Amino acid sequence: MEKEKALVLLSGGQDSSTCLVIALNTYKTVYTIGFNYGQRHRIELESAQTIADIARVPFECLDLTLLSSLTVNSLTNKTLPIEHADHQLPNTFVDGRNLLFLNIAAIYAKRRGITDIVTGVCQTDYSGYPDCRDEFIQSAAQTLRLAMEYPFQIITPLMWLTKAQTILKMQELGKLDWYAHTHTCYEGKRPPCTQCPACKLRQKGFLEAEMQDPLLP
Amino acid sequence: MEKEKALVLLSGGQDSSTCLVIALNTYKTVYTIGFNYGQRHRIELESAQTIADIARVPFECLDLTLLSSLTVNSLTNKTLPIEHADHQLPNTFVDGRNLLFLNIAAIYAKRRGITDIVTGVCQTDYSGYPDCRDEFIQSAAQTLRLAMEYPFQIITPLMWLTKAQTILKMQELGKLDWYAHTHTCYEGKRPPCTQCPACKLRQKGFLEAEMQDPLLP
Repeated sequence: MEKEKALVLLSGGQDSSTCLVIALNTYKTVYTIGFNYGQRHRIELESAQTIADIARVPFECLDLTLLSSLTVNSLTNKTLPIEHADHQLPNTFVDGRNLLFLNIAAIYAKRRGITDIVTGVCQTDYSGYPDCRDEFIQSAAQTLRLAMEYPFQIITPLMWLTKAQTILKMQELGKLDWYAHTHTCYEGKRPPCTQCPACKLRQKGFLEAEMQDPLLP
Repeated sequence: MEKEKALVLLSGGQDSSTCLVIALNTYKTVYTIGFNYGQRHRIELESAQTIADIARVPFECLDLTLLSSLTVNSLTNKTLPIEHADHQLPNTFVDGRNLLFLNIAAIYAKRRGITDIVTGVCQTDYSGYPDCRDEFIQSAAQTLRLAMEYPFQIITPLMWLTKAQTILKMQELGKLDWYAHTHTCYEGKRPPCTQCPACKLRQKGFLEAEMQDPLLP
């Protein structure tokens, strides 16, 4: 049964673009939003706009530059090198980011009569960010319901998929070519740098899925 | 035992000012923050700054004007009349506001090594806002801990007090005169309009506490 309306958090990356395609196959009407939180590169948001245009859904980019003034991390501070060491929080982690995104998305959604908020967070092949885990998402959904007395659902289609399974899902839905317009590289490079932790995770996914990344030459 | 550090959410009203005084008696170091979320009146934030100055604690006002563009309510939209009918959500309710404040406060706090966030929300004499209830606060605290892997505590000294008890608490702490610098009136008037729901709740408190509001002539 096709559902009515959903709001997709669209970052311009591979995961949120896959979520958008899944949502387009599930809901009659789909809205998308993204955030300018002072991330290193505008290219992410340009990718989000491009993907939304291809999908013919409205995309709104909201200003959250306040976030970059509150927290120190290498995603919003270009002078810090990107570091992902084992067994510690990566310095690309932006404290409180996903809850802030979900909170604002929920306000945005409620005003439009939307209960379902779709996000591409994933616990399986994740980067060590605590706010990508299912336990956090469940708690956030309950908090949002209590905050606004509204039956929000946070839908996480990729939560238990590997990157390879996400890629295969996109192929199954016939939109693998959309990945050519997504952006993943932490260094903001196009073609991607292939060396940063985000690029490496993406490569690993395509390797395991035995597919060719349409973003690569 | 005196505790180390706390962050107080300071709105310039009676409740948050009382919380500040309680925090000053509990913690060695106290920080305060407030939010410009496009509320009707700057006078609230001026009151917060005045109270912080009297308390000799740092006060930072963060920009959240994004909030007023996301939601329709009579607190951020001067063209709407203020309406508080029985058994329905008042139109002064700003969807998602308290969670947004707590979320940003938590990011701010973690960066400064603070776990304790003090807020003046109150379930007893509340205005019908779901995000003032204890169930919401407990859920939000857990969500914040999970979001950032950090042992946040949301401290709500007024949760189970009536307005009258809050006033008596302030007297007991010897700072009743600080109320002369607080702001409550939804209409932004000084002296207060005495007719809006916020003014009426304040009057009721002083009446029950059998005290004179130092804000009134």
